[in-house]
Amino acid sequence: MKPYWSETLRGLSPYVPGEQPQQASLLKLNTNENPYAPSPAALAAIRAAADGDLRLYPDPDGSALKRAVAAAHGLDTANVFLGNGSDEVLAHAFLGLLKHPRPLLFPDITYSFYPVYCALYDIAYEEIPLDGEFRVRLGDYARPNGGIVLPNPNAPTGIALSRAELRSLLAGNPDSVVLVDEAYVDFGAESAVPLIGEFANLLVTQTLSKSRALAGLRVGYALGAPDLIGALETVKGCFNSYPLDRLALAGATAALADNAWFADTCGKIAASRDWLTAELGKLGFEVLPSRANFVFARHATRSGASLQQALRARNVLVRRFDRPRIADFLRITVGTQAECETLLASLREIGLD
Amino acid sequence: MKPYWSETLRGLSPYVPGEQPQQASLLKLNTNENPYAPSPAALAAIRAAADGDLRLYPDPDGSALKRAVAAAHGLDTANVFLGNGSDEVLAHAFLGLLKHPRPLLFPDITYSFYPVYCALYDIAYEEIPLDGEFRVRLGDYARPNGGIVLPNPNAPTGIALSRAELRSLLAGNPDSVVLVDEAYVDFGAESAVPLIGEFANLLVTQTLSKSRALAGLRVGYALGAPDLIGALETVKGCFNSYPLDRLALAGATAALADNAWFADTCGKIAASRDWLTAELGKLGFEVLPSRANFVFARHATRSGASLQQALRARNVLVRRFDRPRIADFLRITVGTQAECETLLASLREIGLD
Repeated sequence: MKPYWSETLRGLSPYVPGEQPQQASLLKLNTNENPYAPSPAALAAIRAAADGDLRLYPDPDGSALKRAVAAAHGLDTANVFLGNGSDEVLAHAFLGLLKHPRPLLFPDITYSFYPVYCALYDIAYEEIPLDGEFRVRLGDYARPNGGIVLPNPNAPTGIALSRAELRSLLAGNPDSVVLVDEAYVDFGAESAVPLIGEFANLLVTQTLSKSRALAGLRVGYALGAPDLIGALETVKGCFNSYPLDRLALAGATAALADNAWFADTCGKIAASRDWLTAELGKLGFEVLPSRANFVFARHATRSGASLQQALRARNVLVRRFDRPRIADFLRITVGTQAECETLLASLREIGLD
Repeated sequence: MKPYWSETLRGLSPYVPGEQPQQASLLKLNTNENPYAPSPAALAAIRAAADGDLRLYPDPDGSALKRAVAAAHGLDTANVFLGNGSDEVLAHAFLGLLKHPRPLLFPDITYSFYPVYCALYDIAYEEIPLDGEFRVRLGDYARPNGGIVLPNPNAPTGIALSRAELRSLLAGNPDSVVLVDEAYVDFGAESAVPLIGEFANLLVTQTLSKSRALAGLRVGYALGAPDLIGALETVKGCFNSYPLDRLALAGATAALADNAWFADTCGKIAASRDWLTAELGKLGFEVLPSRANFVFARHATRSGASLQQALRARNVLVRRFDRPRIADFLRITVGTQAECETLLASLREIGLD
């Protein structure tokens, strides 16, 4: 421990994001980015906002973007909280809504940032094991808790719960917040957003990083009852008054209005995913049934580490988590159809067929 | 207290930023923005970065911008921490470096976000009164402490400490971090940055919001010994892997390279400030000796509230803090020379002469 460091930092291990190589020659299937360029309307809005008004602070409330988010989901702006990527939104939710004497519950195999937030904010938690098929068993969450966090679809498995399943979970936990992290929902899972009017304990987070192809812009949001949004606004107001810059506000607002781009690209990615799933199966992979823009797959005979290394040698990046139960799985982002074909060709070169 | 809110939120009162009106007809002298448009090179870099690569995450380390910041200050990239505005940098510093059993010290009249961070992170603190002339008396900081935070120049007074004074403070507090918040330093105060090699306990924060005219881009940074920077990187890595978007990284990197723009605009603002100070004196104001891009002034006979209201009626926004000792002061941002003249004309209309 360093002499000037606060006790809070003792033992903290930061989240490790996927590699962001600076060379352009790599096929990047490791961080679940969208393979398509973002909406041209978003890019045009950003360029238009790159003017002398950048000398001025942004709107601290992000009112125009809140209206766009609310409109996209049939909600009111009082149901919307904005953040600098959904990671910031999640951080504020962990501190403001999920830190309680009773433990927070989330799956043992899930987004690996959750236990990091818990360590940062000293939040008690229990990891609930996925079942033998890597599915969330909702019955396992019927225990005293201070909150529940579930990504839907789950990451890195890609497996989704139905809205009916989430409804039963919400109804069974009226005293604690259920946070449904919908980073990947737009690629084919059922959103919990229509349940917001019904459940005061439901908080949904979404991001523009995946389905809107704006990972480089850092915009995420939470949706929920005004009381939950108020908690997030309180944390935000004590942390950073202006988390979204003028360019992010402008670009995100325009992106949310481009429904044609959104439907087209999400549809293409979902189709490529289903095709890739089938093709990987033919090469000897077990592929979990994904509703996200990635697949989680392990080969019958080859270790995950050896495959990841062999792909890297062919300039293809995929992600692997060196953790119990899943160390042999590769998490592979769904690229364009041509990129999926390049991946499969590389796997054949490695000797799979 | 709302049922779902964590105990952490109990009694929190968010920082209240200055008004950001949406109508353009107002003369905005209330939030210390730069009156000049940012460097054209920064705007060009942003427009160039508004392309299909926004689908990709930013460099989580912001390496190119770190190199630019380090070069601008004659430091190494290991001395640089980047954040989403210096408010985020400050928040991480409060949690990671200033939260200790002994109380944090800062002036009673200073940036009003400091006690908010303390409330958010449960940090013990003592406010040290400025003296009768609203100056920091360094002797008052010679007491057991877990850290010291001083803006230099101080806000909202604008009064600066010399580098020699800061050196003696640093030497007298080897066991705690001294954070010098240099949001306004470029308008005429002595920076503490040259002391970084000498003092392992010195952390300096700066921002591109004021002297680089990029409040709308949200970029700030901290400079210090690698051990202090490491603490901030640890907090950041447990909070949000990518706090700066691709556009902010590109724009800030270009802005820092435009030395001609920087010297020209800082010089103009400093000249207008000194002229405005003299002119306000002629109208019956006591003006504290400012080294920032704002002045802090109270009139001999008119209340601060009445003047603020009368200026607002003439479409001129200035800031006032309704707090003991300073409720009659107006904090007036230094605009262009023409804007300063408009302000003075409005004050004459109100009946000052």
